Amino acid sequence: MEHVKALFFDVFGTLVDWRGSMVRELRATFSPLGVAIDWAAFADAWHSRYRPAMDEVRSGRLPFSKLDTLHRRNLDAILTEFGLGGLDEPTRTQLNGAWHRLDAWPDAAPALARLRERYWLAPCSNGNVSCMVALARRNAFVWDAVLGAEFACAYKPTPLVYLSATEAFDCKPEQAMMVAAHSYDLGAAAAAGLRTAFIARPDEYGPGRGEIAAAVAVDLSAASLTALADRMLGA
Amino acid sequence: MEHVKALFFDVFGTLVDWRGSMVRELRATFSPLGVAIDWAAFADAWHSRYRPAMDEVRSGRLPFSKLDTLHRRNLDAILTEFGLGGLDEPTRTQLNGAWHRLDAWPDAAPALARLRERYWLAPCSNGNVSCMVALARRNAFVWDAVLGAEFACAYKPTPLVYLSATEAFDCKPEQAMMVAAHSYDLGAAAAAGLRTAFIARPDEYGPGRGEIAAAVAVDLSAASLTALADRMLGA
Repeated sequence: MEHVKALFFDVFGTLVDWRGSMVRELRATFSPLGVAIDWAAFADAWHSRYRPAMDEVRSGRLPFSKLDTLHRRNLDAILTEFGLGGLDEPTRTQLNGAWHRLDAWPDAAPALARLRERYWLAPCSNGNVSCMVALARRNAFVWDAVLGAEFACAYKPTPLVYLSATEAFDCKPEQAMMVAAHSYDLGAAAAAGLRTAFIARPDEYGPGRGEIAAAVAVDLSAASLTALADRMLGA
Repeated sequence: MEHVKALFFDVFGTLVDWRGSMVRELRATFSPLGVAIDWAAFADAWHSRYRPAMDEVRSGRLPFSKLDTLHRRNLDAILTEFGLGGLDEPTRTQLNGAWHRLDAWPDAAPALARLRERYWLAPCSNGNVSCMVALARRNAFVWDAVLGAEFACAYKPTPLVYLSATEAFDCKPEQAMMVAAHSYDLGAAAAAGLRTAFIARPDEYGPGRGEIAAAVAVDLSAASLTALADRMLGA
């Protein structure tokens, strides 16, 4: 672990509470319109289309497009599904922007600030650059660069996404550690040669519905980003 | 100008004094070896091979490689030219890293910090990501993202480099401004539809040997980054 010089972070779920934030955004958008739906069910339905949409890119059926674009396509489908197909264009645009207004888990910004003293840090997310910048500004994340899907023109868990990040930071894969709350992400990063750290986010998909332990072999497992920073910095 | 939301910066020459810093690095490397050469002439010779090397990439004769790699190839040639062909590998590597250890002009960091309050900021340099990160850490530049050549897999003045930066920040070209001390860069950015700001760096190539006025039409011309920040922020 002493050879690690860069830390790459998953963002949705690992650093930000996308589901809680999205419920708040949906309520703020729809309540004034007199629409009452199950906000969490809508958020889950929207999120559930995330991987199938990326699979279309990964399989080559769709050219690379930034995640905002995939989210928007999925939003249009979900609105129809929920009987809201009449929603106007400006409201759809505003709603799709909710992915830029997600709030961080409370441990994220302080831990990143501590870790940045010793390591180079970048998000390695499937989110596009502008979304990463908006989330960083909103939540006081300080990055050295924004790497990940848009930089690689590919989506995780494609190995290129992890390897383009290590290459950009002049690291061998084993000199970088991927930090995430999702086993599928860490399994792919490990297969690409990176070190891996699992962070438990037990409430990501609602109370008690998140990964509490890695389902794959990882180099390090921590209950929070604070605990990760303590371990990595020898505190 | 009120529609501008992002500022992109050239780095070598515009934000950092590559020549003065390189002379210092060359002296530090060669003096202990008992080698006395004209450091500035060596720096100029090395730098003069920068554009021809990128031209090989731009023309398609060479696949995209990061600038560190082109600099290293050029260094090997220059060492032979200066009768230093026997220099060992570790010293060559150390010397090539000098591009990561350049010092900023004194106005750079304070102006960037002020401008970041209102605008999204990124370097749009031909330098690679790791070089941009090293220079940012050394000189306290705070960026929202690192865009430019490595992000675009192409070198300025190819239009794609500017347009991939605006696209990453969800900007129309006219919502972004390229800031540089070089007319060729600003001319290309303007042709791609960006706004442009010229910063005078009269000593870039040695005392009195830098551009003092833009040779192309620009939206704004300033004697320093401080003056640019004053103008953009209405101070």
